[in-house]
Amino acid sequence: MAESDPKLKLLATWASMYAIRVKIALNIKSLEYELIEESTEFKSELLLKSNPVHKKNPVLIHGEKPLCESLIIVEYIDETWPSRGHAILPSDPYERATARFWAAYIDEKWFPTVKLIGWAYGEEARKEAMVPVDEGLALLEEAFGKCSKGKSFFGGDQIGFLDIAMGTTVRWLKAFEILCDVELLSEAKTPALLKWADTFCSHPAVKHVLNETEQLVEFTNQIAAKFIAAGVTSPPK
Amino acid sequence: MAESDPKLKLLATWASMYAIRVKIALNIKSLEYELIEESTEFKSELLLKSNPVHKKNPVLIHGEKPLCESLIIVEYIDETWPSRGHAILPSDPYERATARFWAAYIDEKWFPTVKLIGWAYGEEARKEAMVPVDEGLALLEEAFGKCSKGKSFFGGDQIGFLDIAMGTTVRWLKAFEILCDVELLSEAKTPALLKWADTFCSHPAVKHVLNETEQLVEFTNQIAAKFIAAGVTSPPK
Repeated sequence: MAESDPKLKLLATWASMYAIRVKIALNIKSLEYELIEESTEFKSELLLKSNPVHKKNPVLIHGEKPLCESLIIVEYIDETWPSRGHAILPSDPYERATARFWAAYIDEKWFPTVKLIGWAYGEEARKEAMVPVDEGLALLEEAFGKCSKGKSFFGGDQIGFLDIAMGTTVRWLKAFEILCDVELLSEAKTPALLKWADTFCSHPAVKHVLNETEQLVEFTNQIAAKFIAAGVTSPPK
Repeated sequence: MAESDPKLKLLATWASMYAIRVKIALNIKSLEYELIEESTEFKSELLLKSNPVHKKNPVLIHGEKPLCESLIIVEYIDETWPSRGHAILPSDPYERATARFWAAYIDEKWFPTVKLIGWAYGEEARKEAMVPVDEGLALLEEAFGKCSKGKSFFGGDQIGFLDIAMGTTVRWLKAFEILCDVELLSEAKTPALLKWADTFCSHPAVKHVLNETEQLVEFTNQIAAKFIAAGVTSPPK
């Protein structure tokens, strides 16, 4: 970032995979930013003022301008600094549309089904909860083949938009595997995604901003304990 | 469209406001397309093949390539034919992010609350259902002021991305006003949006592809009658 550029501040909780997406995009563009750690329990005045509609992190503040919603922020970063680092969105309009389609699928349709595994008690319920999760993984495995065209990432040679969208779920998937005794990414079901996940997580722009699986397991256990203590047995709306 | 361009086919039901978004974008770019009318009751083989993930219209087929999800299709059209008609997305990255933010808000958060009014039986329940709807309208009224900067559209002098996203809800809002005896857009609550809605609906790229409010009222009554006959009293998932 040039000296004269307005300062970047990122409001983020440590646990948010959505915030990690923004960190990765900032890393790809080698942009310096001030990280303002948000609590996972309370929302700061600055967060509430900057994102009054959703009241959620991450928020990127560029100068005075707040930006919300992780995928929108990632696109903003790519469009504002097109010549820094590499392009995050593909240049071809159809490939861009495809990346946006799968990223939206992950956020709106597939990942919500992953979170429901944690609310499925008993073997039968868990098996049932896994059906849409596995269907989604099969679709994403297929999408990886089409998007990557034999290269390492959804984005080809470089980490792209869809890598960021899907890649930030990986450590959560591992946490769910431990917490719920299920198999998500595996050699049998998703060989390409399994290999991609390793490559993604060890990428220089990614590895230092990811959470460790153990941290997420512990964090989830703490939340689960609170739900149990409060008698909550179904996902809060 | 030049002679050599691959053909455009649009799979759309007449009632889908999402399909109308695509029609408006195609009109703005003066692109010819073959309209393949989908039934509101049955999904065609071509639709299921073209959108196997969501199984929903609209689908735009460009040559052999299917595109799904209305807002993604609108962006694709704008990016594929940037020099035809006017730009649909703003050129400034922050304005683009803002347009995307509100468009996503409409689709994921606000419009779903509008649809719930129809499921609120009795005066008290309806009043309660109107709370998030009115909150959203107040936010969108404010967003209009900021985005339009005193001009006619969210996009300024021209119909833009957010005009298309919000504008295609207008006739449905009028239908809900009639069906549910509520007030949505009004001089008292949303003076700017009320005026904008009229300007939008009479725009040459829009007016011939919008449905009449009466058609939507009749269509909704038919669906409601089927739900009542089947004993369904809460929204299907």
